Amino acid sequence: MRAYQKGNQVEKLKRTISAILPLQQDWQQKAQKRLDSLTKPPGSLGRLEEIARRMVGIRQSIHPSTTNKVIFTLAGDHGVAKEGVSAYPQEVTAQMVYNFLSGGAAINVLARCIGAKVIVADLGVAEDLKPHPLLRVKKVGYGTKNMAKGPAMSRQQAIQAVEAGIELFEQEYQSNGIDMVGIGDMGIGNTTASSAIVAVLTGQSPEQVTGRGTGIGDKLLHHKIEVIRQAIALNRSDPDDPIDVLSKVGGFEIGGIAGIALAAAAHRVPVIVDGFISTAGALIAHQLQPVSKEYMFAAHRSVETGHKAALEKIGLSPILNLNMRLGEGTGAALAMPIIEASIKILTEMATFQNAGVSEQIN
Amino acid sequence: MRAYQKGNQVEKLKRTISAILPLQQDWQQKAQKRLDSLTKPPGSLGRLEEIARRMVGIRQSIHPSTTNKVIFTLAGDHGVAKEGVSAYPQEVTAQMVYNFLSGGAAINVLARCIGAKVIVADLGVAEDLKPHPLLRVKKVGYGTKNMAKGPAMSRQQAIQAVEAGIELFEQEYQSNGIDMVGIGDMGIGNTTASSAIVAVLTGQSPEQVTGRGTGIGDKLLHHKIEVIRQAIALNRSDPDDPIDVLSKVGGFEIGGIAGIALAAAAHRVPVIVDGFISTAGALIAHQLQPVSKEYMFAAHRSVETGHKAALEKIGLSPILNLNMRLGEGTGAALAMPIIEASIKILTEMATFQNAGVSEQIN
Repeated sequence: MRAYQKGNQVEKLKRTISAILPLQQDWQQKAQKRLDSLTKPPGSLGRLEEIARRMVGIRQSIHPSTTNKVIFTLAGDHGVAKEGVSAYPQEVTAQMVYNFLSGGAAINVLARCIGAKVIVADLGVAEDLKPHPLLRVKKVGYGTKNMAKGPAMSRQQAIQAVEAGIELFEQEYQSNGIDMVGIGDMGIGNTTASSAIVAVLTGQSPEQVTGRGTGIGDKLLHHKIEVIRQAIALNRSDPDDPIDVLSKVGGFEIGGIAGIALAAAAHRVPVIVDGFISTAGALIAHQLQPVSKEYMFAAHRSVETGHKAALEKIGLSPILNLNMRLGEGTGAALAMPIIEASIKILTEMATFQNAGVSEQIN
Repeated sequence: MRAYQKGNQVEKLKRTISAILPLQQDWQQKAQKRLDSLTKPPGSLGRLEEIARRMVGIRQSIHPSTTNKVIFTLAGDHGVAKEGVSAYPQEVTAQMVYNFLSGGAAINVLARCIGAKVIVADLGVAEDLKPHPLLRVKKVGYGTKNMAKGPAMSRQQAIQAVEAGIELFEQEYQSNGIDMVGIGDMGIGNTTASSAIVAVLTGQSPEQVTGRGTGIGDKLLHHKIEVIRQAIALNRSDPDDPIDVLSKVGGFEIGGIAGIALAAAAHRVPVIVDGFISTAGALIAHQLQPVSKEYMFAAHRSVETGHKAALEKIGLSPILNLNMRLGEGTGAALAMPIIEASIKILTEMATFQNAGVSEQIN
């Protein structure tokens, strides 16, 4: 039974990866033609036009709906927190989950601004959480193991985490529909795991991709870099095997984020990648299936040093740059109105012909 | 009678300028204290926190309202268009005003997304426009004169344009209230005027601050730079007298924009400056009263080459960078939700104490 489940699980990941197809250029061409007929100089709305084109390509519709906006905030704990790499104690992960559930966190406020639903999921918080109607429990373990001493999780757990993300997406997609999905995180210690993932997958050094997370000082930053260096040296993960990287130096919520990114792409739903941790998850998705990037939008450029390298490795250019470093999906919530605006431009603006406006002469 | 009116007019500008006061630091400190009590690492929302602080300072309230959002789109024609500096014919200014009034332009679409009101005003379109309930007529002239041959307008007209902006703001403010104001523009040839203004007021050369406007090619760009160089050399405006600069190489709608920026600051209303032309207007306001910058937010960084220099001269850092170059107030409409979100963060997030979340240890 266990062996069968295991086989079934890998099947889910394989099936999802193989369902992700490149965008069809003809839809983007249709969008471009429409954009060029609107009462504005061609290209003058810059990235708004680029976003609108890609949205049309993803949704295969010239009037893509943006009604059902969902932000998944995935929580997990990290054994490496024992190394004292964060400014906050581990119990903050669970405390913040309760804060999400009662609607008081930044992500709740920003999601309300845009009419998005926040789905909170426990991928691996270190304690059992009290049941709540808004909480999805997909626990892979009670926090990862300390990656500075050995692998953060088993290969099977890594696959389970990614597949938990796929399930989270598909359950909501089938029940209520999703037009646009944001991916966010919560987990004390998860910038440490993300820096390790990004270092291994981009080939950059820990110094180059490690930042201050929740706000540590110089001394702790130096220590954090050393812990990451040690974890990478000890675990010797295979950069060509993203599941191996996730299992050796990753996190349960990061695996879940990768799963959501893959599932969304498989169902042709745009994925709004939040900050550094979300991008580490998106990078794992990208390494599993490079085509998945065609469905991704980078919401913002985080203050975290490694974010730039991770975005460049995938090939994404951030929509916003607001010096944020909170996670939770907050950047995704702020970028969603820009994406919605791009669609309104496409669908609601007058054409030169309808408005009786003269076209370009020079 | 004429002499009296003239005196009365300068009075309005003087009165407005003298009503602009520096922000009180205690309000910003109150905002900071509140921000630091919220369930997030201190400073982790980056520019959102900076925006919230300044909004509280401007409005002198810890719960500033953002309900009444108004975008003024000011239209005017430019005699310099005769030099063939634009990709579009002059009649497009009037055609676009009708497009604004019928709700089909980009600014209408983006304003609808955020529930903002668009007020269209004729500051100096080259033809008489058909009356429309949404159109405010504050015509200073039928287009400016060609600045390549002489001053764009008289000194009196320059003052009249700025005071028309003050009146536009105050009429709406008194009738319906304004919590936040965006300033936008329409006018074939107005990037030429704006580049000239910015060159004179920043001391940069025409090459450094002149871009492609609505999308001209290399040859026309070279010609446009030469026209600006000629206009500056011929008119010899005084960089220490912003009204002189406006009269020699400016535009009616640019003067109106300066007036709105001044009036908003005088009434402690935040001003969301759009792109290059709006920033040229804001720069004139800033040179008339440097304190006005404390009430300004730069919505975005335009593709126009001179925008950076103009923003730096005022001392503003753009919220968005989306490679846009349309004007109308479109960037202001896209930045407003970010500003609103910053206020919601301040007023709706849970504190560490209320949510039972542990504070920083390291």
